[in-house]
Amino acid sequence: MTPGAGIFRTQLPQGFFAQGINCGVRRYRPDLGMIVSEQPAVAAGVFTQSTCQAAPVLHSKALLPASNIKAVITNSGQANAATGQQGDLDNQAMVAATAEALNCDSTQVLAASTGVIGEPMQIDLITAAIPDLAANVTNMAEKFALAIMTTDLVPKTVYKTLTLQGKTVTITGIAKGSGMIHPNMATMLGYLLTDVQMAPAQAQSMLTDVTNNSFNMISVDGDTSTNDSVFLLANGESGVVLAQAEDIATFQQALQDVAILLAKSIARDGEGATKLIEVQIINAPDLDLARSVARSLTVSPLIKTAIYGESPNWGRLIGRLGMAQVPAELLAKLSITCQELLLYDQGQAATEDLQALRIGMREDTVILTIDLKSGDYHATAWGCDLSERYVKINAEYVT
Amino acid sequence: MTPGAGIFRTQLPQGFFAQGINCGVRRYRPDLGMIVSEQPAVAAGVFTQSTCQAAPVLHSKALLPASNIKAVITNSGQANAATGQQGDLDNQAMVAATAEALNCDSTQVLAASTGVIGEPMQIDLITAAIPDLAANVTNMAEKFALAIMTTDLVPKTVYKTLTLQGKTVTITGIAKGSGMIHPNMATMLGYLLTDVQMAPAQAQSMLTDVTNNSFNMISVDGDTSTNDSVFLLANGESGVVLAQAEDIATFQQALQDVAILLAKSIARDGEGATKLIEVQIINAPDLDLARSVARSLTVSPLIKTAIYGESPNWGRLIGRLGMAQVPAELLAKLSITCQELLLYDQGQAATEDLQALRIGMREDTVILTIDLKSGDYHATAWGCDLSERYVKINAEYVT
Repeated sequence: MTPGAGIFRTQLPQGFFAQGINCGVRRYRPDLGMIVSEQPAVAAGVFTQSTCQAAPVLHSKALLPASNIKAVITNSGQANAATGQQGDLDNQAMVAATAEALNCDSTQVLAASTGVIGEPMQIDLITAAIPDLAANVTNMAEKFALAIMTTDLVPKTVYKTLTLQGKTVTITGIAKGSGMIHPNMATMLGYLLTDVQMAPAQAQSMLTDVTNNSFNMISVDGDTSTNDSVFLLANGESGVVLAQAEDIATFQQALQDVAILLAKSIARDGEGATKLIEVQIINAPDLDLARSVARSLTVSPLIKTAIYGESPNWGRLIGRLGMAQVPAELLAKLSITCQELLLYDQGQAATEDLQALRIGMREDTVILTIDLKSGDYHATAWGCDLSERYVKINAEYVT
Repeated sequence: MTPGAGIFRTQLPQGFFAQGINCGVRRYRPDLGMIVSEQPAVAAGVFTQSTCQAAPVLHSKALLPASNIKAVITNSGQANAATGQQGDLDNQAMVAATAEALNCDSTQVLAASTGVIGEPMQIDLITAAIPDLAANVTNMAEKFALAIMTTDLVPKTVYKTLTLQGKTVTITGIAKGSGMIHPNMATMLGYLLTDVQMAPAQAQSMLTDVTNNSFNMISVDGDTSTNDSVFLLANGESGVVLAQAEDIATFQQALQDVAILLAKSIARDGEGATKLIEVQIINAPDLDLARSVARSLTVSPLIKTAIYGESPNWGRLIGRLGMAQVPAELLAKLSITCQELLLYDQGQAATEDLQALRIGMREDTVILTIDLKSGDYHATAWGCDLSERYVKINAEYVT
């Protein structure tokens, strides 16, 4: 397996093409991207749990899972959320222009948008640019990744190849997001592309599992967006059919590796962030508790600011575990470790060496491990610290 | 009714005495306070929902409701939470020293602590100072209010008098808190004192109602503390017995007014805050939805930073309403007003005059009203904006 990340290092699976251009909604940066599959692809999606769902979310959700998807069109700058009936019409126009340019049906085109909520779409700029965009799709995952960025500092692409049945399978992931929600732009988007052959139901269930362990375990500011979407497209062009249990397990693990790398890159690129925070809950009595406690620690502003300031205020961790409803009998026996330093165990402080903790927290990644000593379930969540810069970015933004 | 707030303006109900002193846990500031009722008082309490409850919370909770409470002892600087068995012993020592000084039983003394979580108590300093403190209780609600402060910038006291059955009844409220949780000190404490006569069960149910409309509707950073406690003490010394429905309603309204004034003063004094945010949810189909949506808006970092920056980014409000699970059919008809300017109605933008909104947001208090147009339930929540200073306070704190 060859993991790769970053611009100019990504390859697409066989039969997939991508491109990004500037259509004029934003001044200079690419703001419109397209992914095309030569052969109709099996596709699955997972979407925001918000009751306020953007027009492209409603469109894509209604189509998936599917077995005949040709393309995904995505714009950045305007979220097409809270835009009323005109928003639906604008999304239909974006999808129709893509279908026409690719000579396929509108039901074969998925859509996503990211940007300011509530602003009307500059749809004419988008539809006018689509024919040119469609004519120029090629092996440019990086340009697509740039076109979907909002407050992201870096484009996010990852790929992995693996050998199944003697053949090479590629999984390529592209994402954007400076958090579960963007202060101004409110979107996390993920695209997982592969040339393996799988059934729509299989794709949907695998994507749900993988998302629950990756994108659904990150947070920058605890908000859920109106536009969150993760797509999985599988076009079968590697000639590998996912049927045997062993192949399925190997592939799903690789897909999850790609998704976790992307998810971590989003958390690390959280607005104003200086550190990645990884929270590992181990030996929990059930998976739901493990996941909810892990996430709860990553959204606490008290923990996030303490890590930013490299302040060894570990009492805040206990406070948050109580708020996260860890049962009192577990609180009495659990242990808390930070950067491999045992801080708390069996209901009381386990170290007085706060200087060692302070030094450990200088690292770029801070790892907290909570051992609940009560079962076999584990969960890991990722977040970032909270700096003055987060406030500045979001306070100064003017629509 | 004569509301009063601020230092040197508070009076205590008949038969109540208070004082605050420095016992040496903190360098100069008062850090130990006591409230004494001449006659045994009826008392009720509401406490943090955290599963991690401080030793004084467990002690006070076990005693209440009660009809024979003589005193409340409170220290600041150390929270006595996550302190193991030693924490329970330390709390017992603090309570026993108070009972001895007042010549009453330990079961007549309530306790509260606020400060750093996990740090062992400097209990010897506290018990040594209690006899002197008990000997000097007088009409010094302000000194008590100062003694329980942590990161608070101002002491928080309010009183109200009302006439019932031809007699004067006083309600005095004292609180501390720079939020539902203090970054370092993790506590919100409230004390409601009155000279009316009421039954313990009546006191408990009234306190629960009042707290649900006041202290439980504020947030600074979305965290719940290990030490949150609100007490109601009623000693009957006004000679007024609360029995008739009309008197009960009048008294409860006055008690709620006091609690809301205190709650708002906590939100306004949130760490780093520059503005008070009031969120009014009106015409909701049920009370739980109204309350949860109101609170959800006050904890969103995106909304808090936008208000801090006076940035008219109202799309963030819709995003948060969706995350708060407002049903889609309500989202399609609700209206959003900020500073009396209609921003959004019937699923789309209602104004393009963002400059007027920007000017309105310059006020010291920003009021958001969400009209759900679907029922008769209302709820109001209070919070504060999020500034760089919040991050600085919490990042730089060193235990």
